[in-house]
Amino acid sequence: MIYDISMDISENMMVYKNKLDKYPTIKQVNTFERDGNYESELTMNLHTGTHIDYPLHMIENGENSNTENLSILTGRAKVFDLTHVSNSIGLSDILGFEILENDFVIFKTRNSLTDVFDYEFIYLDESAAIYLKEKRVRAVGIDALGIERNQLGYPTHKALLGFGIIILEGLRLKAIEAGEYDIYCLPLKIKGVEAVPVRAILVK
Amino acid sequence: MIYDISMDISENMMVYKNKLDKYPTIKQVNTFERDGNYESELTMNLHTGTHIDYPLHMIENGENSNTENLSILTGRAKVFDLTHVSNSIGLSDILGFEILENDFVIFKTRNSLTDVFDYEFIYLDESAAIYLKEKRVRAVGIDALGIERNQLGYPTHKALLGFGIIILEGLRLKAIEAGEYDIYCLPLKIKGVEAVPVRAILVK
Repeated sequence: MIYDISMDISENMMVYKNKLDKYPTIKQVNTFERDGNYESELTMNLHTGTHIDYPLHMIENGENSNTENLSILTGRAKVFDLTHVSNSIGLSDILGFEILENDFVIFKTRNSLTDVFDYEFIYLDESAAIYLKEKRVRAVGIDALGIERNQLGYPTHKALLGFGIIILEGLRLKAIEAGEYDIYCLPLKIKGVEAVPVRAILVK
Repeated sequence: MIYDISMDISENMMVYKNKLDKYPTIKQVNTFERDGNYESELTMNLHTGTHIDYPLHMIENGENSNTENLSILTGRAKVFDLTHVSNSIGLSDILGFEILENDFVIFKTRNSLTDVFDYEFIYLDESAAIYLKEKRVRAVGIDALGIERNQLGYPTHKALLGFGIIILEGLRLKAIEAGEYDIYCLPLKIKGVEAVPVRAILVK
């Protein structure tokens, strides 16, 4: 059974803070009348839709997508249900979970229940990020277009990215129950960039 | 074991017929100096790099990416070695292969041995396409940026797309041996378009 956990990409999709420059544009460049075929061109910020962040996003001269490792982006993943959380995911919310070294952890929140951008979206706070870093997880996924908001200096991003932990943002988890799955989180193979759009699925 | 069969995406990658409008552009839109973070924007023709074609690419009012079916794009796949073929893959080249209904067939040719666009690239001719259509395969992959060249009216595309068979172009198969694999061919989830860039891997 395949569960798609990726966001639809279209010109009127949900984007971070509804910023105009985050909406993709799709332009038809070949037409049947002129060219005998139909072709389109996509323009998109690399942080639009479901995507992974590399250290360069938040750390000057940090590592970029050239460090991609498909064995990190595939394998077992654990989905945790945090739909009861009302502001941010803190240390106390995840202390009771079985989180082990090398885990790919995914947090499902109430963000997955809406298709409209929520300026008060649930995020992962610094205390939880530090805990995950100390646990040495391999990746952290969340159903928000940002893994944090309104934290001065981006401490959640930096705790994880500074340690080489992959951040996966923009998941859609409404239909996903807590539990273990096999994840295939496959990024476009764009070289040398700070973030890459992905298609992510869970398999059970 | 994971085998990546996707093309690198960068501003100087190999593109179809070296056409200028097929090269992607990557523009930095946020800087550490001004924004405190690094963000980029990608502009890319949807037929650049490894991608799948939908009927709308060649058939007016044909179906588009909204018909995507992940169960077609995953599962078993068969790689056939045709690196000895010198011009095009014809019916006689594939008649001896065990090709069955619902197969995902992938043809490895000498195209995989170069990173420079070859105007005489190996393609799939109409006779082979009609055979594959009659066999009712579910998808056809090739290591060329076009599944055909210089065939008036695009008969190879139309034989396959007209029958709902997925075409996967731009594979990189240099390191892949003939045989059976599990494929995960995951497209960006772009809605309503005639082609979608994918990340494709084989697993053995």
